[in-house]
Amino acid sequence: MKNITRNNLTDTVKSSFSNIEDERLRHLVNRLSHHLHAFASETQLTHEEWREGIAFLHRAADISSPSRSEFTLLSDVLGLSSLVDLMAARPGATEGSVLGPFHTRGSPWMDNGSNLIRNNPGDPVLIRGRVTDIHGQALPEATIDFWQNADNGMYWQMDDTQPQDNLRCQMKVLPDGHFELVTIRPRPYLVPTDGPVGELLRVSHRDAWRPAHYHVIVEAPGYRSLITEVFDSSDPWVDKDAVFGVRASLVCDFKSESDSHTAARLGLPAQYFAIDLPIRLARED
Amino acid sequence: MKNITRNNLTDTVKSSFSNIEDERLRHLVNRLSHHLHAFASETQLTHEEWREGIAFLHRAADISSPSRSEFTLLSDVLGLSSLVDLMAARPGATEGSVLGPFHTRGSPWMDNGSNLIRNNPGDPVLIRGRVTDIHGQALPEATIDFWQNADNGMYWQMDDTQPQDNLRCQMKVLPDGHFELVTIRPRPYLVPTDGPVGELLRVSHRDAWRPAHYHVIVEAPGYRSLITEVFDSSDPWVDKDAVFGVRASLVCDFKSESDSHTAARLGLPAQYFAIDLPIRLARED
Repeated sequence: MKNITRNNLTDTVKSSFSNIEDERLRHLVNRLSHHLHAFASETQLTHEEWREGIAFLHRAADISSPSRSEFTLLSDVLGLSSLVDLMAARPGATEGSVLGPFHTRGSPWMDNGSNLIRNNPGDPVLIRGRVTDIHGQALPEATIDFWQNADNGMYWQMDDTQPQDNLRCQMKVLPDGHFELVTIRPRPYLVPTDGPVGELLRVSHRDAWRPAHYHVIVEAPGYRSLITEVFDSSDPWVDKDAVFGVRASLVCDFKSESDSHTAARLGLPAQYFAIDLPIRLARED
Repeated sequence: MKNITRNNLTDTVKSSFSNIEDERLRHLVNRLSHHLHAFASETQLTHEEWREGIAFLHRAADISSPSRSEFTLLSDVLGLSSLVDLMAARPGATEGSVLGPFHTRGSPWMDNGSNLIRNNPGDPVLIRGRVTDIHGQALPEATIDFWQNADNGMYWQMDDTQPQDNLRCQMKVLPDGHFELVTIRPRPYLVPTDGPVGELLRVSHRDAWRPAHYHVIVEAPGYRSLITEVFDSSDPWVDKDAVFGVRASLVCDFKSESDSHTAARLGLPAQYFAIDLPIRLARED
C-alpha cells in the first residue's frame, strides 16, 4: 500500500497474512498482529521503548543455551505458560501445571515400588498413586514419568555432585492402576536470575522462588497426556510461585507415617512421609 | 496465590508487577501481560503451538548477529516498527519511517553540494532539500545524516566490492536551511529471508521486497529528530513494501532535468534526475 497511515496500518498488516493456507496459523498470526498493535497503540510506545524491548530479546537470546531457555522463563514469569496449561485442562481430569526446563526424555525405567533415594540426603517420602479415567476406572496401560530436585534444591542436570538420572524415573502402573515410588521430599528453589528475566523480577520486587514440587507426566493410550506438578502444602512459597503453577488441587499434605510392614517392604525408615496421588486422565478429544 | 485458575490468573500476573516503581514501566508490563494473555485466551493456544512459538524465538536468536537483528526484522514485517514510527509523528512535521538495519553512526561529514557518486554505476540524482520548522522558518543549525544502497541493491556493509562509507554522508544545511546532494538512484532490495522471518513471509505468500528509498535522519537543536525514508514513485514495489514503511507524503517523483549551469556546478552529466525534499521538524515536546 502506497500510503500507510495509523488508520490503515493494522488492517494492512493483517491482510498481508491473509494468504496463509493453514487456517489455524492464519488465525494465530492475525490475532498476534492484532494484540501487538493494540499493545503499542494503547501505550503509545516510543522509539526508545521499542529499542529497549528489542535489546531485551537479544539479551534473553544471549543467555540462552541448549539447556536453558530464557524465552520459556519469560513466558513462565508472565504467566503465559500457566495459562496454556490451564486451558489444556479437561473437566474431571487432574489439572496440569508447568513442564519446567528440567524435563528430558529417556529417564530410566524402574519397577513399581522402586526406591530412588540411594545416597540422597533428605526426608524419605512414599508416593502412592492410582491412574484412572475421569470416572475412576483404572488405566492399566498408564505410564509415569517422574522427576524432582535434590535436597540442595538442584536438578541433576545443573549439579556435578549428583549422579546422572538422579531422582528421576519412568514406571508402569499395576493392572489396577496403582503405583508406588519412594523418594525424598522436594525443595523450593530459585529460577535463574542472572538474565534479563531476573532483571524484570528485581525491578518488580518479585520473588524468584518456586515452591517445592514433584514433576509428573502421565500417559495412557487413548487419553490426553497430563503434564503436572505436585506441591508440598507446608512449603512457605506455595502462595507465591514465581511461575504461577500452583493449583489448589495439586497441593498435597505430606503426612507422617510409621507402618512397619510398608517400611520393610519398600526400604523406608521406621518414620517416613506419605502422599496420596489420584491421577485422572481425560479421553483424547 | 495457592489456587491459580483461569479466572484469576491474568489479574494475579498483573498484580505481581504492581510494585514496579517506575509508573511508565509498570503500565507497559501490565498492558503487555494483558495482551499476551488475551492473545493466548482468544486463540486457545495449545502446548504444541506454544512450543513452536518458543522455538521460533530461538531460531530468530540463532540467526541474529551484531550486524543483523532478526527480532527487528520480525517487528518490521509485523508492522510494529512502522506503527511506532507513525505514532512518533507530529502535526505539520515530515512523517517518519523505518530506520532499517543499515544505519551506523559516524558517516563522513561532507560539504553542502557534495557528490557521492565517485565510481558508482547508476542514474545520477540531484537531491534538493530545505529544513524548516512546521511554519516554514529555516533551521540553519540542522544536520542531515544520509545513506542508501548501491546500484546492485546492497549497502556497503553487506558488500565487499564497495568502499567503506560508500553512498553515505553527514552534512550541515546552509543558513537558509537549503542543502544539495548528488548521488545515484536507489534500488529495491530483498530483506533477509534465510531466517524464521523468511519462513513466515514464504508461508504467507508475501513478497520480501522493499521499494527503492533513501534514508535520512534530520536533527536540529530544540526540535524532534526525524528518522525517515524517501521513496521513488516509479518503483514497482512502492505499493507493497515488506515492512510497511511507505507514506504518500514520502513518495517523490524523480524528474528528468538538464540545466547546464546546475550540471556544471555540481559535476552532473547534461541529463540527470532531481527530487525536491522539503523537511519540516516539530519542536521537542
